[in-house]
Amino acid sequence: MSLLAVGTVAFDALETPFGKTDKILGGSATYSSLAASNYIDRIELVSVVGEDFPEAYIQMLQEHGINTSALQIKHGEKTFSWSGKYHHDMNTRDTLDTQLNVLEKFDPIIPDQYQDCNYLMLANLSPKLQRKVIQRMRKKPKLIVMDTMNFWMDMMPDELKETLKLVNVLSVNDEEARQLSGEYSLVKAAQKIMKMGPDYLVIKKGEHGALLFHESEVFFAPALPLEEVFDPTGAGDTFAGGFIGYLAATDDISFGNMKRALIHGSVLASFCVEKFGTERLVNLRQEEIEGRLQQFIDLVQFDIVLEDSL
Amino acid sequence: MSLLAVGTVAFDALETPFGKTDKILGGSATYSSLAASNYIDRIELVSVVGEDFPEAYIQMLQEHGINTSALQIKHGEKTFSWSGKYHHDMNTRDTLDTQLNVLEKFDPIIPDQYQDCNYLMLANLSPKLQRKVIQRMRKKPKLIVMDTMNFWMDMMPDELKETLKLVNVLSVNDEEARQLSGEYSLVKAAQKIMKMGPDYLVIKKGEHGALLFHESEVFFAPALPLEEVFDPTGAGDTFAGGFIGYLAATDDISFGNMKRALIHGSVLASFCVEKFGTERLVNLRQEEIEGRLQQFIDLVQFDIVLEDSL
Repeated sequence: MSLLAVGTVAFDALETPFGKTDKILGGSATYSSLAASNYIDRIELVSVVGEDFPEAYIQMLQEHGINTSALQIKHGEKTFSWSGKYHHDMNTRDTLDTQLNVLEKFDPIIPDQYQDCNYLMLANLSPKLQRKVIQRMRKKPKLIVMDTMNFWMDMMPDELKETLKLVNVLSVNDEEARQLSGEYSLVKAAQKIMKMGPDYLVIKKGEHGALLFHESEVFFAPALPLEEVFDPTGAGDTFAGGFIGYLAATDDISFGNMKRALIHGSVLASFCVEKFGTERLVNLRQEEIEGRLQQFIDLVQFDIVLEDSL
Repeated sequence: MSLLAVGTVAFDALETPFGKTDKILGGSATYSSLAASNYIDRIELVSVVGEDFPEAYIQMLQEHGINTSALQIKHGEKTFSWSGKYHHDMNTRDTLDTQLNVLEKFDPIIPDQYQDCNYLMLANLSPKLQRKVIQRMRKKPKLIVMDTMNFWMDMMPDELKETLKLVNVLSVNDEEARQLSGEYSLVKAAQKIMKMGPDYLVIKKGEHGALLFHESEVFFAPALPLEEVFDPTGAGDTFAGGFIGYLAATDDISFGNMKRALIHGSVLASFCVEKFGTERLVNLRQEEIEGRLQQFIDLVQFDIVLEDSL
């Protein structure tokens, strides 16, 4: 199966209690594609960068099986860049600077040869552009996963709601779920959000794991307890990318398989936060994923058989 | 097997966003004993109340298999009482009033016939009194579980550390684990705290579940996602009581069985928060526990087989 990933490719300058970086590779589509590349061979990336974007990054993406032929390179323009600072709890961050640059006029063009993609990852981007991508697909993909954030809820709530009607899975964090629904209880929030369009809702809770809702069902994937979260940037995008990458690779969108996909998303996110930016994802080996899957199994599996549990 | 439970029996006056109560039954030993009573027939309670303590409460405890013959009733004195107010997120609370009353001079006397108890629950109480209880046991119990709180870390840290040396399992919440260890990372906090004495550490994270640490192993029990948390009072005591009650009933303190005990603790805590005070625990039926255990299984169990997971 093939995956179309649309979102941002960016420069991030990061500061955490453990150090700071100059401009390094970032962006929602970057993280999502890299995560998905652990599962599938064909990932079509649609995004935009400026002429300041290093060829080495493009090569690295290609080496991970990510097709960059629809990554638009705007000559005379600059790549979208963001800088932010994390505090000790790593759950809050301050945006220090945002330069939209090439993103301001980004027109996500979907090449003809990508029209057969059955899995569509709408990584964080303006909901208006996310909707444009869906409208440009001549055949509706088998599964559309959309990630978004509070920024769009503040800036263009109506656009966001229009786009929500068209997607199968929405991925947001707990605070965003509360903001979008106006409900404090995540169970109530999930029921309201699923009435807005998505059949499935993933609520990411950072170090507290993630929930998957579908109709009256709920599944919980823990986060691995880590000694240190070095840099949480991109963890949510990585989570979503691992989730859809696993689904695309197995081509099974049953709830049972979505549970497995959620665990894989959580596994990949647990790697992402161990180093700055994409560094850990870029150098991730298959055996490491397998080893950490075993840690997740040990973390939550228990053998209560109900007939003789008491 | 038999369980000795020592802690407070109290009056609580509660205010939550959903309503308020007059003085109702509360106390760490009350919640822990009621929770444990779902698993074992013989619970020996050691605590103290004043002459204002209603006979009906004592009868109710007895009807749940809790032996109250060592519940001291101090004539001319008043029962320990606490009042508090919860805010919308239910994770923080303000203490409005605390009247120690009979607790001030409480001397936990362990009757001879309780000396054979193999399981000791030291529910939240002054660490000095908790240590006195351990010293008064002629034979060290098979398992000592201790619950404590930030109040004792502030007021008598040295007493607390002395007592920690003598227990097998410590149960605290995430903020308390951080305070006790001086480490923000719960993984690091756990390693430090286990060096202080306990072989096992339970870190309760409220709506985010609970972690069980032992040497290099870690197990996670989720909290059930609830539409509403009506009143969180006693949830931690209930958790600890369900945990030790299950262990005492099965008389198996292997790590595998502790995992099951942690799930049972989480199940009972999920009931506790549904109504004010002990109301839900008092009226809990075995079939309800079984039904919720199934919900916990559905919530976290997944079938990834590592050989063919990718």
